[in-house]
Amino acid sequence: MRKSLIAALVIAVSSPAVIAASVFSDAKDSVEYRQAAFQLIRHNMADIGDMVKGDVKFEQERVIKRANALATLTTLPWDAFTVKGGSAKAEIWDNLADFESRAEKFSADAAELQTAALKGDQGDIRKAFGAFARNCKACHNKYKD
Amino acid sequence: MRKSLIAALVIAVSSPAVIAASVFSDAKDSVEYRQAAFQLIRHNMADIGDMVKGDVKFEQERVIKRANALATLTTLPWDAFTVKGGSAKAEIWDNLADFESRAEKFSADAAELQTAALKGDQGDIRKAFGAFARNCKACHNKYKD
Repeated sequence: MRKSLIAALVIAVSSPAVIAASVFSDAKDSVEYRQAAFQLIRHNMADIGDMVKGDVKFEQERVIKRANALATLTTLPWDAFTVKGGSAKAEIWDNLADFESRAEKFSADAAELQTAALKGDQGDIRKAFGAFARNCKACHNKYKD
Repeated sequence: MRKSLIAALVIAVSSPAVIAASVFSDAKDSVEYRQAAFQLIRHNMADIGDMVKGDVKFEQERVIKRANALATLTTLPWDAFTVKGGSAKAEIWDNLADFESRAEKFSADAAELQTAALKGDQGDIRKAFGAFARNCKACHNKYKD
């Protein structure tokens, strides 16, 4: 069991978050899927943000739970960028290589945040969270209405 | 790195999926959060379902990717059952212990599906998926409008 789980995690972490062919029933389904993924990302991110800023008491177990969620969630939206729509700018499809590269960086940032969360050093968590949040915002500035 | 990741996974898997105090800005935020989680669950589940039924070609890597997502996603909605709303029946809050127990079973089912996916035996995957899907439906029948 443990061996299998480790293998799963290794696969999850090593798989690049690229836009791949996927099955959505229609354009609306694609847009809603990526919006749902981003909503969950936003919420889990905000909770770590509150702890990092000191608005909420820092609890390592809570950071780990959020970071674990983000490590998976940040791999999900990209398959659903098969159609335009929602608040996605058309520039995404004019710059797919850049967009995919940012998507991969975002997942990698989440994996680093997860590692920092597990180590438990608040300075490292703050640093990893800062990098994660900055890249999140930079991509929104460029590709989100 | 790998050691930390293993620790993260062990924590993720061993933490029960119970309804815990959590931070949502308002009732709408809670309802939307759990709906987003269920939408992602539904989609990842449907894709495995299509492969299990033979409607789509079976690809182990794709099953693993979906099962990895489900192992995390099935831990997420429960924190957001802090308020009534959406298609959640009031019976949930009259039977919280039963609801929480079903939530934990659902996460455990997803973990078993993940293990089966990694082993790659299609019979085992079908069996694990069947158990997962049946419990999903049974809970909806009781607690979802």
